[in-house]
Amino acid sequence: MRNTGAALVWCPFPDRETARATAARLLDESLIACANIVGEIESIFEWEGERSSGTEIAVLLKTTSERLEEVVSRLGELHPYDTPAIVGWCCDQAYPATLDWLMLQTRPTLQ
Amino acid sequence: MRNTGAALVWCPFPDRETARATAARLLDESLIACANIVGEIESIFEWEGERSSGTEIAVLLKTTSERLEEVVSRLGELHPYDTPAIVGWCCDQAYPATLDWLMLQTRPTLQ
Amino acid sequence: MRNTGAALVWCPFPDRETARATAARLLDESLIACANIVGEIESIFEWEGERSSGTEIAVLLKTTSERLEEVVSRLGELHPYDTPAIVGWCCDQAYPATLDWLMLQTRPTLQ
Repeated sequence: MRNTGAALVWCPFPDRETARATAARLLDESLIACANIVGEIESIFEWEGERSSGTEIAVLLKTTSERLEEVVSRLGELHPYDTPAIVGWCCDQAYPATLDWLMLQTRPTLQ
Repeated sequence: MRNTGAALVWCPFPDRETARATAARLLDESLIACANIVGEIESIFEWEGERSSGTEIAVLLKTTSERLEEVVSRLGELHPYDTPAIVGWCCDQAYPATLDWLMLQTRPTLQ
Repeated sequence: MRNTGAALVWCPFPDRETARATAARLLDESLIACANIVGEIESIFEWEGERSSGTEIAVLLKTTSERLEEVVSRLGELHPYDTPAIVGWCCDQAYPATLDWLMLQTRPTLQ
C-alpha cells in the first residue's frame, strides 16, 4: 500500500531555538518542506546504565521518502547531541496536494 | 511484519474549533474511531518560495489501514486549507482490543 | 526501504503519573529505551455507540522493530484501561547512533 512519497522524522531538541535553527537549515537545503514544532515534552530514558529524565522540544519534520535518508543523516550532523534520537518513517498515504508540495519543496536544487 | 489494520493520520488545522468539527464529521461518517488533538504547534515551512511560520493545532487521527485512503481523501475535502498537510501511515502492531475497537468503529455503515 | 530496527508506539494515558510509572516499568524490563511524554491531548472518540471526549496524556515510546510486538503486548497488560489505544510502527530510517542506543537498551537481559 506504500504508493506515496511522503515521509516524517521525529526528533527532540534541547530547546526551541535550536529546533527552529535546525529546521531552518533543513529548509534552506531543500531537505524538508515543513517542521511542526510540537513543543515541550518530558523524556524518560536510559543512558549508559542510568535512568534519566528531562525536558525537550519535540519536532516532526515533513519530507519525501526519497529524501528521508538524507534528512536523517544531515540532521545528525546539525544536532547538538552526540547521540540524538532521530527516527523516520515513510507514509502510506498523502493528500495529492500535500505530496505535490512536499516534492516541490524538496526537489534537489542544482548546485 | 505489517500484520495489523491500524493506521494513523497526522494533520494540522488552523484552530481547535475547526479541528474538533472536522474530527466530529469523520467520526459521524465512521471513517475514524478517535481523534487525538495534540494541541498547539509552531509550524515553519516553505510556501511558493517564501519561508513562513505560524501556529496551528495538530491532530492525530486513528483509523484502519482499510479506511486510510478514504480518510485522507475525505479530510482533504473537509479541510479549510487549499493545500492541507495530510499524511497517513499503516501501523505494524496494535493491541488486539485496540484493533477490534478501530475496526468496529470504522466498519462501513449500510447506506 | 525498511532497513532499520527502530520502532515507535503511540499510547494515551489517563494521567501523567500513570504514564510515568508505566514508562518506568517498560524501561526496567528493557523493552523500550525512551518515553517521550508529549503531554496533554484532547481525545474525541466513539465508544459503544456513544460520542465521548476527554483529556489524556499522550506518550511516544521508542524501541526496536524486534521488540515492538512485546512492547505493545506488555503495555496492554500494564495499562489501566480495559481497551487502551496502543498502536506501533516500524521506522524506515534511524540515525546510526540512535539505532545503536535503541538496540543496546532493549537487548534481552539474561534471566
